[in-house]
Amino acid sequence: MSFSIKQTWIECIGCGFQAELLQERKFKCPKCGNLFDIKHNLDLLEMYPAGWTQKFDARARRTDLGKTDNPLFHSGVWRFKEWIMPYLPTNDIVTLGEGNVPITKAGKNLLEWIGGDIDLHIIQEGMTPTGSFKDFGGTVMMSLAKTMGIKTVCCASTGDTSAMAAAYAAKAGIECVVILPKGLVTPAQIAQPLVHGALVIMLPGDFDDCMRVQLELTTNHGVFPANSINPSRIEGHQATVFLLAQHFGWELPDWIAAPVGNGSNVSSIGKGLRLIQEQLPNIGSSNILGCQSRAANPLARSWNLANNGRWDEGVDRRNFWLEKYVDIECGTTTATAARIGAPVSRDKVMREIALSRGAMTVAQEEDLNQAVFVCGRDGLFVCPQTGIALAGVKNAVKNGWIKAGDRVAVVSTANGLKFTESASENPDRRMIDSSDCSVESVLDLISAYS
Amino acid sequence: MSFSIKQTWIECIGCGFQAELLQERKFKCPKCGNLFDIKHNLDLLEMYPAGWTQKFDARARRTDLGKTDNPLFHSGVWRFKEWIMPYLPTNDIVTLGEGNVPITKAGKNLLEWIGGDIDLHIIQEGMTPTGSFKDFGGTVMMSLAKTMGIKTVCCASTGDTSAMAAAYAAKAGIECVVILPKGLVTPAQIAQPLVHGALVIMLPGDFDDCMRVQLELTTNHGVFPANSINPSRIEGHQATVFLLAQHFGWELPDWIAAPVGNGSNVSSIGKGLRLIQEQLPNIGSSNILGCQSRAANPLARSWNLANNGRWDEGVDRRNFWLEKYVDIECGTTTATAARIGAPVSRDKVMREIALSRGAMTVAQEEDLNQAVFVCGRDGLFVCPQTGIALAGVKNAVKNGWIKAGDRVAVVSTANGLKFTESASENPDRRMIDSSDCSVESVLDLISAYS
Repeated sequence: MSFSIKQTWIECIGCGFQAELLQERKFKCPKCGNLFDIKHNLDLLEMYPAGWTQKFDARARRTDLGKTDNPLFHSGVWRFKEWIMPYLPTNDIVTLGEGNVPITKAGKNLLEWIGGDIDLHIIQEGMTPTGSFKDFGGTVMMSLAKTMGIKTVCCASTGDTSAMAAAYAAKAGIECVVILPKGLVTPAQIAQPLVHGALVIMLPGDFDDCMRVQLELTTNHGVFPANSINPSRIEGHQATVFLLAQHFGWELPDWIAAPVGNGSNVSSIGKGLRLIQEQLPNIGSSNILGCQSRAANPLARSWNLANNGRWDEGVDRRNFWLEKYVDIECGTTTATAARIGAPVSRDKVMREIALSRGAMTVAQEEDLNQAVFVCGRDGLFVCPQTGIALAGVKNAVKNGWIKAGDRVAVVSTANGLKFTESASENPDRRMIDSSDCSVESVLDLISAYS
Repeated sequence: MSFSIKQTWIECIGCGFQAELLQERKFKCPKCGNLFDIKHNLDLLEMYPAGWTQKFDARARRTDLGKTDNPLFHSGVWRFKEWIMPYLPTNDIVTLGEGNVPITKAGKNLLEWIGGDIDLHIIQEGMTPTGSFKDFGGTVMMSLAKTMGIKTVCCASTGDTSAMAAAYAAKAGIECVVILPKGLVTPAQIAQPLVHGALVIMLPGDFDDCMRVQLELTTNHGVFPANSINPSRIEGHQATVFLLAQHFGWELPDWIAAPVGNGSNVSSIGKGLRLIQEQLPNIGSSNILGCQSRAANPLARSWNLANNGRWDEGVDRRNFWLEKYVDIECGTTTATAARIGAPVSRDKVMREIALSRGAMTVAQEEDLNQAVFVCGRDGLFVCPQTGIALAGVKNAVKNGWIKAGDRVAVVSTANGLKFTESASENPDRRMIDSSDCSVESVLDLISAYS
């Protein structure tokens, strides 16, 4: 037993039932079936605000990293270990050096496209070992698996989650099983789990069949889940908030915008905001903007029905929102990684949007694709899911939620290199054929088209 | 005129002819046709060793980056501005925040595969805005173009260079033309220039036709080249050496290994080593290991013929090497980005291998592919060109050039996500079909295969 229930435990978000994290394998409340939160007793650490920021700044400032193996210096997630998994033995940390991602100011094309006079920044969580934000949570999930003595982890994702699970399992020396629908995944989507040595099982069915098998394996056969019902994932994703606060000199931005698929990102941002506001009382506050595509908008659609524009009164309308909520059948979208009609973390998303006095918004397909191309014109290659969040910010500026002068941070969730097909198909692209291989023909084309 | 010939100039590596950098458009010596070096008069800066390291460490230590736009803090290349392009106006810097790449210790599978008891580190230059090491040089090339008032840059690369050129040109507001062979490039290879708004011209020929047109555009029509005949690229790539030295607390590793295609990487590493050894006399020294695939080995093949294993006597055998050198027709390799039979920077590579008392080696195709998979088992997804360098290190350990206890840094040149097809085809992969979608079948497969 590496930590006691007085230090870290799990607690049902529905009925408050508590249990020991290290004994848990099903990640579903046995009383009411709802999701678990991980809770830590930070009072035991007896730290004061300036103590936290000095400690975290000192870790970030280390320049001779070749002289230490300590993950608290190498990882931008574990830099904040005391806020993420304080009682985990440092020796059990499984890291690939994730989390030191650039946070960059929006370029001029993007600012012009969004409109308004806002201070816009993008945290590039695709600049991670496996190319997506999943690594922030993955390093914590796999470290916990190591502490618990887990032999096999399993997931049914076809994209970012399977890449993350396979890479971190390889690093940990833990077996990883990835369940994919045969014939429905591209070679690019299976390359990462294969390279990282996962056992890839192809099912003669669709993604829902894979997910059903995965959940049954977890619930009835003790197979440790790598997907986001595992609350340790959420702990790591909180680093998004901590990194942003540190970047701005320990101030929170006015808004944090993120795309919502299964909802782990918004769930974590909200949890991280509540934690940092408790530990650093003068840090200010952020509203969360949850963004969904038109094709996969169960949370944004029901939020619109329930709130009718009355988003900013500070009233917790979660019950009314839940009444209006229904799972949906997804339409077509280039933002395939967020194409989810029944988000696993639904109730956590609702909680965090409400508590942060945030909002939900729907990105039109045309807008999210345009956002990718507009960022490209600033030299930044983002994924279509980031396009959802950027189109959402544009909406929120237009309808006055985000105001002139507001500082806004957008979570860019994956590397554009994972989504090259849709990026090539933009109607504004400039690609022309030369009639022959002469310099004259090429010069003619350059003067005609540039 | 933003800097004078007394501060920065170009000098032919063959005959020593000097000219003004800002006036140059052809990047070819008018006297003897050889390549140019960029030279700076660093004495004008009047700095002493501890002054340099204190300055560069202070820039790396900044944690509240949201409060400054200064690229000397944001970019891991421009952190070393005084060593890279000291007299360039800081306002002209075109940066995408490149260069803050992780340098990670080799995992246990890789160490076991390479053998020997070496201290192996990998600098992950695929963790850059466009996913390859080209960004290190690209930021300097495009900044110079901006200073010079260039309106259009052009290149004929089908992969990493075109992505880099398009992204940095977009950021600079400069037109970018990319010339590609129609039907011979994948959608993934053209996605990046298209997203970044480059004018993509498809020629009805092969890559050699594209390159010929590109060179004629530069030589006869004043089109600014983005490829590595442009010596400003080399200046930026020197940051590899500076980052490694800083990472190890201002010590050089015993060896720096890199793949060699056109040769810009080895050219820059050597130039950077000579510079840092002059400025920090106590920093030690590194031997450069230049690595080529069996399919594209003109430099390694001729080095073997000329040196006959007598690599370590410190004798400069460049003339003999050049005598043995012939361009080759390339064979087939998964390391397509280094598949070059007539390297543009040939003479610079020869100079730097000789001056660093380094060596060249040939990676077998099987070994370079195996290296990718072995890294994958440590949770790291590298490109096949990195596989060449890792297989080269394995050779050098086997034949005793690299000795037990040596510290070795390998340059990982691109993100594995750019090379998913070859990565999926590894014979050691584990992918199996389930006969049906039942949990029982999947459980049977898990127990049989894991």
